[in-house]
Amino acid sequence: MTAIVNIFLKEGVLDPQGKAIHHALDAMNFEGVQDVRMGKQIVLKLTSTNRDEAIKEVTQMAEEILANTVIEDYKIELL
Amino acid sequence: MTAIVNIFLKEGVLDPQGKAIHHALDAMNFEGVQDVRMGKQIVLKLTSTNRDEAIKEVTQMAEEILANTVIEDYKIELL
Repeated sequence: MTAIVNIFLKEGVLDPQGKAIHHALDAMNFEGVQDVRMGKQIVLKLTSTNRDEAIKEVTQMAEEILANTVIEDYKIELL
Repeated sequence: MTAIVNIFLKEGVLDPQGKAIHHALDAMNFEGVQDVRMGKQIVLKLTSTNRDEAIKEVTQMAEEILANTVIEDYKIELL
């Protein structure tokens, strides 16, 4: 089973990487971009075949090691 | 309109960040993880309301600046 964990900065937390991309897009004349946020995507290949168990395990991974929950939120998706 | 660009290393390209995460998960006794790949997720807020136009514009952004297409693939999703 494959689990995708998307990690992104919480609303209100400054995102210098996103800002840098926004500036670069402006400099290259890409108009019509209002805002850019940059996040991480972690793709985990799991041996588990039980969805409930996988969600539980990946949530624990996200809380304990993958995300910094002080400034980051995460979303888990199972494929 | 919101566009999400997921950027990940091509199959076969070494992923040291993913490997580091895998090691850390092993060290914390998370078993059942076969492989970890780490990618980027860029969320763009666009003024455009035309889906076809937005896809075209974001594809151009991804090709020219967001992704390094020598080693990275990307997927675009519109919300």
